Amino acid sequence: MKETEISTLGEFGLIEHLTRSFPVRNGSTHRGVGDDCAVINYGKDRETLVTTDLLLEGIHFDLTYVPLMHLGYKAIVVNLSDVYAMNGTPRQVTVSLGISKRFTLEHIEQLYEGMRIACEHYGVDLVGGDTSASVTGLIISVTCLGEAAKEDIVYRSGARDTDLICVSGNLGAAYMGLQLLERERRVSAEMKDKDFQPDFSGKEYIIERQLKPEARHDVIEEMRELGIRPTAMMDVSDGLSSELLHICKDSGVGCRVYEERIPLDYQTAAMAEELNMNVTTCALNGGEDYELLFTVPLTDKDAIEKIEDVRVIGYITKENLGKMLICRDGSEFELKAQGWSMK
Amino acid sequence: MKETEISTLGEFGLIEHLTRSFPVRNGSTHRGVGDDCAVINYGKDRETLVTTDLLLEGIHFDLTYVPLMHLGYKAIVVNLSDVYAMNGTPRQVTVSLGISKRFTLEHIEQLYEGMRIACEHYGVDLVGGDTSASVTGLIISVTCLGEAAKEDIVYRSGARDTDLICVSGNLGAAYMGLQLLERERRVSAEMKDKDFQPDFSGKEYIIERQLKPEARHDVIEEMRELGIRPTAMMDVSDGLSSELLHICKDSGVGCRVYEERIPLDYQTAAMAEELNMNVTTCALNGGEDYELLFTVPLTDKDAIEKIEDVRVIGYITKENLGKMLICRDGSEFELKAQGWSMK
Repeated sequence: MKETEISTLGEFGLIEHLTRSFPVRNGSTHRGVGDDCAVINYGKDRETLVTTDLLLEGIHFDLTYVPLMHLGYKAIVVNLSDVYAMNGTPRQVTVSLGISKRFTLEHIEQLYEGMRIACEHYGVDLVGGDTSASVTGLIISVTCLGEAAKEDIVYRSGARDTDLICVSGNLGAAYMGLQLLERERRVSAEMKDKDFQPDFSGKEYIIERQLKPEARHDVIEEMRELGIRPTAMMDVSDGLSSELLHICKDSGVGCRVYEERIPLDYQTAAMAEELNMNVTTCALNGGEDYELLFTVPLTDKDAIEKIEDVRVIGYITKENLGKMLICRDGSEFELKAQGWSMK
Repeated sequence: MKETEISTLGEFGLIEHLTRSFPVRNGSTHRGVGDDCAVINYGKDRETLVTTDLLLEGIHFDLTYVPLMHLGYKAIVVNLSDVYAMNGTPRQVTVSLGISKRFTLEHIEQLYEGMRIACEHYGVDLVGGDTSASVTGLIISVTCLGEAAKEDIVYRSGARDTDLICVSGNLGAAYMGLQLLERERRVSAEMKDKDFQPDFSGKEYIIERQLKPEARHDVIEEMRELGIRPTAMMDVSDGLSSELLHICKDSGVGCRVYEERIPLDYQTAAMAEELNMNVTTCALNGGEDYELLFTVPLTDKDAIEKIEDVRVIGYITKENLGKMLICRDGSEFELKAQGWSMK
């Protein structure tokens, strides 16, 4: 691979070079990269949504097993997921990078290629950012702007007693993928064999869930078509427990969630068994699934069951009934967010 | 000082704790911190502006001489300055932090106190962000949203032949302040004297320009009152040369700038002499002044001269006449952006 020192382009040259392949797709993008600010206009009755995420090497990703292109893709997707989780449509992103000396231009191009593919796939525009040297490692800060009609926006605070609790896709897979990647990295390091190739056969799904998550705009669209408007919604970035507790706290309600109803993929369960971990704990606390967790009124029960990839996992209760997990054997536990690692 | 480990609060506790003292000031802020996204609406004919900046320890700031409160203030102001430089009004900011283990809660509170003061002073709302551990050092990523009527927005591309080139305040002071702070840090380190106190008397202005820059909303307002709409505008963050070259390139024009007209403060000149540096070079390439550089039609000459803190430093020419600096002795030099350090 070609190795071009980043300093040969200069900062503005670098930004121009990297952003050249990002066309403008949205009429609301009046001016993209290249001035002090991007200019965006959602007009009239549209609300502007804004969300931001910081991804740090050594904390959120490990480049020994995360390809830069996947990292770029994921950095965009995790922000889009937040906009979908408000029932909005993402439209623009800004990307700021801190780049240490060990990265060449080709590295950063791979990162941007992943971002370009994500922008194309989700129809969003890259409209600005900032690029800087860093002392150590790679720093990625992404901000996403989106839009929604005022009456469509779904907050965390709207869940009501008797609402059904729903989740899209399945949970715990991204966390199991991470465990697998970390195990293979350790094995590779111990073997000191340069030709060591990890064997991921039969585990491709959990690897992909970790390296290339998707935002569930398909579920948002299906609900819209079916006339379902969730009463509360979040994306599952920190883990099901943590997100459920947020919704309960902000809505002033309790919940009952059934262990047997938490959707799991076969590979997730198999990997948990192989690693001697409790798969329910992984699904509750794993995080990075970027599935949608939401509540709908009981009256939407028939409609929600029409969406293939959504499962009802429990229901909302009055606040004084607590936030409970009902296990397969009928025992009940208070839901708790996992110990915090500032990750 | 109290020393509380950040992990005692948990991530969400930390964000709640830090953002509690930021009231909502703008009607356009429909929902601030506390959901997947903030919700903002500028309505009807207002354009949304968005800008972002990444500040990294060891690259953009050195905590051995930058107080955290000042750093917080500056991190906000440099973003607001970009919105003013579009002739817009900043309204909301998001703040993402990466925090290494050596920082306590009290440190981060100081940083946020500076941000709070800046938000209050400029009337902007903190509406979201992200907080994370970092492997080394402090990472600050700020995104600012602002608004402007479509017809008011000033781009870099509007400068035309015969337009006057204007600059607010004075240049090079922030860079001289940085030189002084770095010299005192070196002296302090060499002396190994814990009681060493740098003496900044008579140099307070250049220190303040480095540590606590302001965005020139006053100049924007004065121009608005006088009915002046610049044809092109930028803020001077990278240095006068670099910004002039941007305007010339994007507008397809040349320029003639007069060395003798470049506004300098007495302390800037005295410090440059003390350090044996060319003060014009410092003013051209120093950066971080956050003054406004803009062009106005010749017909605005009388009006612009009414603004006390603005100087006409030259004029725009046809592109083929080059981008020229006219020195005190009449000699002419092609303007060049200084070598790039990715800073």
